[in-house]
Amino acid sequence: MLDQAQIIRTAHQMADAARHAILPWFRNADLAADNKRPADFDPVTQADRAAERAMREVLADARPDDAILGEEYGATPGSSGLTWILDPIDGTRAFLCGAASWGVLIGLSDGQDIVYGLIDQPYLGERFEGGLGQSRLVFPGGERPLMARGGVTLDRALLLTTFPEIGSPAEAAAFARVSDRVRLTRYGLDCYAYGLLALGQVDLVIEAGLQSYDIAGPLAVVQAAGGIVTDWQGGPAAQGGQVIAAGSADLHRAALDLLNG
Amino acid sequence: MLDQAQIIRTAHQMADAARHAILPWFRNADLAADNKRPADFDPVTQADRAAERAMREVLADARPDDAILGEEYGATPGSSGLTWILDPIDGTRAFLCGAASWGVLIGLSDGQDIVYGLIDQPYLGERFEGGLGQSRLVFPGGERPLMARGGVTLDRALLLTTFPEIGSPAEAAAFARVSDRVRLTRYGLDCYAYGLLALGQVDLVIEAGLQSYDIAGPLAVVQAAGGIVTDWQGGPAAQGGQVIAAGSADLHRAALDLLNG
Repeated sequence: MLDQAQIIRTAHQMADAARHAILPWFRNADLAADNKRPADFDPVTQADRAAERAMREVLADARPDDAILGEEYGATPGSSGLTWILDPIDGTRAFLCGAASWGVLIGLSDGQDIVYGLIDQPYLGERFEGGLGQSRLVFPGGERPLMARGGVTLDRALLLTTFPEIGSPAEAAAFARVSDRVRLTRYGLDCYAYGLLALGQVDLVIEAGLQSYDIAGPLAVVQAAGGIVTDWQGGPAAQGGQVIAAGSADLHRAALDLLNG
Repeated sequence: MLDQAQIIRTAHQMADAARHAILPWFRNADLAADNKRPADFDPVTQADRAAERAMREVLADARPDDAILGEEYGATPGSSGLTWILDPIDGTRAFLCGAASWGVLIGLSDGQDIVYGLIDQPYLGERFEGGLGQSRLVFPGGERPLMARGGVTLDRALLLTTFPEIGSPAEAAAFARVSDRVRLTRYGLDCYAYGLLALGQVDLVIEAGLQSYDIAGPLAVVQAAGGIVTDWQGGPAAQGGQVIAAGSADLHRAALDLLNG
């Protein structure tokens, strides 16, 4: 029996702690200057690490029996059957450039499914939340429900991706088969793309080369909003790799056919 | 003799008016729904037009003798020798997707040079300002000076662009010659890329197929921050076309050599 309210409260505390740890580094002139001396200092990794440590401290206090899988500090075993899957900064390249498509990703697995997740964008103050009965975007202006949009055919679909920065040549070719057929493709959106799909702004996200911590949080957010997330074969996406998210089953099927065409 | 204070005040009033006109359409569910019926309604164009009309109303009241060149309503003659160059929404594709890399662009030409400009991002509440003694970013957390960063060699440079969405095959090949040599390339940033260069976050922006209203405001912002903006031949960029912006003269030269190699 999950104590859902306490889990959700803990997740928000984690995201708050990560914001607090990361924001001093974003667009920080010291960080920019220190990019010239990567040998002795890696400020982005320092932001990553500080954020994951901050989230782990929250868990150690609030839910010490849960397991953790974090990008920076690896796996920590637990006894509750629950595992928190953490990416303190997804989109480090965007972070370095000062663009706000990076995010803090938090997912919660019950050993079977990703049951809850957050995509948090600290600079915008936006938090996409999905699972355990939640499906909403909280932002400085208020909050709104998340709902993927349906009824959009492939030729009208908006597609987001981190291609061409990711993927093998074969994956890029498969991606192009979909991209050539949609209304509009936008690049370089990182985890924020999944938030925009959950918000009903776009219809497809197609990526490759993902890690489990890249997709756990987004997967929960998109599914709670009524969207579909699978691998390119239509199987489970929680392990990462080649991932497709769609606003509707019809669109998902049409895009899968092209990816595998 | 320019009344600089009044010009600057007017420009901010214009940007405020554009914000007010556009924001109700951003991530508006009605707008998303109406994308399915483009034949009878084009809500993005409606946002564009409302914003340009709002800016023109400010000018008619505050500076009726200035000329105007706007993306939506074309050229309006004037007698003062000054021309306002307006792009009410640069980055319509980002706007449609709900991503915040679009912006309101305002440039002021004295017939010779672009002497002042704004890049305004209404959703983020960020306003990049350059020229007539100004060089700053105003944002919800306060304000900070704009200053392009120097001393970054090509192999360490961060490059932003709207490629691969823009440009001919030959332009894409020239772009790739630079992109292959830099540390990091990010895609799909629209006018926001020039703001990040002026902020000293990135080092190069390379684009093609621009119109004069796409570059007037960004050009003034980048130059006021100490950056360089030219066409791919090193000549004036104010007419648009192929544009390169760089944080330093050395980097600009190195990238130009590759573009023309």
